[in-house]
Amino acid sequence: MHIIDVNSQILQENTRLAEENKKLFNKYGLHVTNFMSAPGAGKTTLLEETIKKISGNYKISVIEGDLQTSIDSDRIKALNIPSYQITTGTVCHLDARMVHNALHNFHLEGNDLLFIENVGNLVCPADFELGENLKVMVFSVVEGAEKPKKYPVMFHKVDVVILNKIDLIPYSGVSLEELINNVREVNPEAKIFPVSCKTGEGIDDWISWFSQNIKGK
Amino acid sequence: MHIIDVNSQILQENTRLAEENKKLFNKYGLHVTNFMSAPGAGKTTLLEETIKKISGNYKISVIEGDLQTSIDSDRIKALNIPSYQITTGTVCHLDARMVHNALHNFHLEGNDLLFIENVGNLVCPADFELGENLKVMVFSVVEGAEKPKKYPVMFHKVDVVILNKIDLIPYSGVSLEELINNVREVNPEAKIFPVSCKTGEGIDDWISWFSQNIKGK
Repeated sequence: MHIIDVNSQILQENTRLAEENKKLFNKYGLHVTNFMSAPGAGKTTLLEETIKKISGNYKISVIEGDLQTSIDSDRIKALNIPSYQITTGTVCHLDARMVHNALHNFHLEGNDLLFIENVGNLVCPADFELGENLKVMVFSVVEGAEKPKKYPVMFHKVDVVILNKIDLIPYSGVSLEELINNVREVNPEAKIFPVSCKTGEGIDDWISWFSQNIKGK
Repeated sequence: MHIIDVNSQILQENTRLAEENKKLFNKYGLHVTNFMSAPGAGKTTLLEETIKKISGNYKISVIEGDLQTSIDSDRIKALNIPSYQITTGTVCHLDARMVHNALHNFHLEGNDLLFIENVGNLVCPADFELGENLKVMVFSVVEGAEKPKKYPVMFHKVDVVILNKIDLIPYSGVSLEELINNVREVNPEAKIFPVSCKTGEGIDDWISWFSQNIKGK
């Protein structure tokens, strides 16, 4: 049994399904963002803060991915935003088929934005295209400045790196400058936004960039 | 193609190889601990602190797992402890074969303890037995109190849960009590040690339990 061949077949089939998703998203004029991170980096909180700022201007839907529970989906629904929770059981990432199946739970017509929150994992989600327009990763600065070197695949693949929890920098001993340099080394093109979802610092810069990025949609 | 069947074959083959590893460990009287966590929870720092406290009493070797770099292995070598770095590329976990191959880099004769630091990932490493005696997970309290509910597989499988970075609790808004209750809900049997590798708080409790646990070896 050739594990690599099997994985490669799985990834090829996923890429094909992601292309199908992309066609569907285009048909409905839907701009789709895939949010990825390690567990606990603050994806859901970032989504909440983003939704609060822009939900007056756009019609938004959210797909949540977790191994278990509907905790995240419930948080989004509390903002009066349609949200569907995918529970993956033991699977460590969302794939294009899961997203496709989840779409049946939404009325896509008239929607502007779809936010997909991936399973918390700094490795595997990066390998699975979902048909999205934008890949955003959220990284908690507390995880350490050297992580872009140790987990280069996701840092390399994303369009945006949001460095969250900068309010904890004074207590964590992590150098934001060193972290940003390490991100740049792996991905010189990425937009980088240091933010604190807790204090609100930096959120407006992210929102401003994101709003401009979807302007043409 | 049946993805689940393929995965099940991979896991069965891994379990067989893990049994082989276990026989080898037993032959050399080696006590083996598998340290798992999300990225940046503090596995390497916990290893460093543990090694400093007990290396006078035991002969220790370390296997490090990361996608890229030998940063962690270099940190262990700086303590004059033999260490071998497995770089997995894009693979999100260590498996029994990787560990078996890494063993060729050590003189197992006369060793007491082998510490294996897994790839930073709260999902997949839990599925891959390595032939170890003890499964320890390190969880950074900053990742949030609800995580045991959302990532139950690893929390359920381990013998020990080390709740690290408790020095950040006053700044993070996370409730240690709620976190411990959530761990207990998923795994009532686990030993739980709240620690701060930064301040040293709680480390002695972990070391004391660990030393007693390997006494009979």
